[in-house]
Amino acid sequence: MSEPQLDVIAVGNALVDVLSQTDDAFIEKQNKRHGMEKGAMTLIDEARAIDLYTQMPPGIESSGGSAANTMAGFASFGGNGAFIGKVADDDLGKIFQHDLRSLGIKFETQPLIMGAKTGRCLICVTPDAQRTMNTFLGASVELTANDIDEALIANAKITYLEGYLFDRDTAKAAFIHAAETAHAAGHRVALTLSDPFCVDRHRSDFLRLIESHIDILFANEEEIKSLFMQDNFDDAASAVSQHVEIAAMTRSEKGAVIRNGEKTYEIPAALVDEVIDTTGAGDQFAAGFLYGFTSGKDIETCGKLGALAAAEVIGHMGPRPEMLYKDLIAKAA
Amino acid sequence: MSEPQLDVIAVGNALVDVLSQTDDAFIEKQNKRHGMEKGAMTLIDEARAIDLYTQMPPGIESSGGSAANTMAGFASFGGNGAFIGKVADDDLGKIFQHDLRSLGIKFETQPLIMGAKTGRCLICVTPDAQRTMNTFLGASVELTANDIDEALIANAKITYLEGYLFDRDTAKAAFIHAAETAHAAGHRVALTLSDPFCVDRHRSDFLRLIESHIDILFANEEEIKSLFMQDNFDDAASAVSQHVEIAAMTRSEKGAVIRNGEKTYEIPAALVDEVIDTTGAGDQFAAGFLYGFTSGKDIETCGKLGALAAAEVIGHMGPRPEMLYKDLIAKAA
Repeated sequence: MSEPQLDVIAVGNALVDVLSQTDDAFIEKQNKRHGMEKGAMTLIDEARAIDLYTQMPPGIESSGGSAANTMAGFASFGGNGAFIGKVADDDLGKIFQHDLRSLGIKFETQPLIMGAKTGRCLICVTPDAQRTMNTFLGASVELTANDIDEALIANAKITYLEGYLFDRDTAKAAFIHAAETAHAAGHRVALTLSDPFCVDRHRSDFLRLIESHIDILFANEEEIKSLFMQDNFDDAASAVSQHVEIAAMTRSEKGAVIRNGEKTYEIPAALVDEVIDTTGAGDQFAAGFLYGFTSGKDIETCGKLGALAAAEVIGHMGPRPEMLYKDLIAKAA
Repeated sequence: MSEPQLDVIAVGNALVDVLSQTDDAFIEKQNKRHGMEKGAMTLIDEARAIDLYTQMPPGIESSGGSAANTMAGFASFGGNGAFIGKVADDDLGKIFQHDLRSLGIKFETQPLIMGAKTGRCLICVTPDAQRTMNTFLGASVELTANDIDEALIANAKITYLEGYLFDRDTAKAAFIHAAETAHAAGHRVALTLSDPFCVDRHRSDFLRLIESHIDILFANEEEIKSLFMQDNFDDAASAVSQHVEIAAMTRSEKGAVIRNGEKTYEIPAALVDEVIDTTGAGDQFAAGFLYGFTSGKDIETCGKLGALAAAEVIGHMGPRPEMLYKDLIAKAA
């Protein structure tokens, strides 16, 4: 096996975020009619996406997607990354492509030519700074095992999988194929659980995937509790460490807990002046951790890099870095 | 002639803004190779737009266009407005449509089906908060006299024309047609000069248009000086008042000067905590003035509403209101 030329390759949803400022009355009305849940992520189909967008106030568009956000942060640290995900051949797809490629991230997945449009996440931001997400997955769930670039994966130290992709069977197959390819080349596979509701929808599949294919697991407190159906975080954390080499679990202002075999690392949350928008905190924690890990740092430093990146992203609107994360490395040392 | 049902109908470029943070070295490099001028607006073609976008860092997309920004502010005051402008039948066109219609602005111009894509303005924001604009006009200059909805114009108290549209001959013809339709119905026609370079490119055409068709002229200091080729603002202001009923001229932190026949009104600039981004100041001054004027306010109050709207928009990123301008009316009274 040759030396890997990529640090991390991520497989995830290719989404563009549309952010609108709404009031609580708007959310309540959408909740009554369409089950929109404040603070949660609801999956919607194209007809509902058009209907909801028509009712939403003016918006601002920017590239999103959980694993893609992580790769943006990873590149901001100076990491050498790639992304696999499906856009359509439309304006939003070109925006998504541009925003990854311009960071130096390799992104060569063929856009979907016929069928669904590029996926989008319609986000209502209420005056309390909470985000209510409505995701039309669009082209992103048309990712198939054929899109998994085996040569790229065989050349990456870590293949990082986004749990949200589990919402469609063909994407699930692509996942397994990516994991098997990485392991066959002797490399690690990481997974982020993405969302407690997503875990709830696919619990047994997630458990099977983790048991058979995952070396490094990223999750927040709610997700790990949901996965093992435990009310207590410590019980859930003990359960997960029997299945993976490393489990990196974030707990908002309580910081992060990392289990590595017998060892447990408690990483305090990094200081933030003012929390503006918590979206992307988990994505950027993963970015920092993965950057540290693939550059040979010890687990504690990996955790601190994750905490610093998470603290940066919650200090402003939007799920991607506003500063160069390279500059955080000196802080963590 | 029946009572107008619309307050203002604007005719302008339909553009989506793409904002990227760059450093000064980026601008210098683009200046050497492609003549990009820091702080100015440069017109670019599609090939150059693709090339520049490829080189730009990740961006954020939001609806723009000078007269469309004005209509967004006008609607935010509670004004009853409409917009005529050309998008293509693509994602960016849908975003532009949505962002106007969701504010209650009537916007029914048929999108261009074949040919150019929706126009966009690629904006480099440097650390000093300056914006360097590169505009690919795209579909927006395919506006023709056929797109001028005569019934709508005949029903509007004011037809508001964006000077930037003068950069293409067919659009110029559409302008004249709109102005003639408005006057035939007994209503007023307003024009914004948009940009000193645009004035420079089309000085004699602008002078002819103003002489024959314009009742209310909006301009900033640089534009009005460019139009009459005067170094001195007062000389330029005296010249313009011989050609139009009302000239509303903005002078940044010096406030605004409004000439109405023999009378001159000096409007001080409204207070701003911190100037974040000056884009849209002129557009929103026009929004406030037009709202005051079409609701029957005296000229001084119109000017104050303009100054308040301009002060709001320069206090944050982006050329459209972040708050409801309705709430500014009490302040002006």
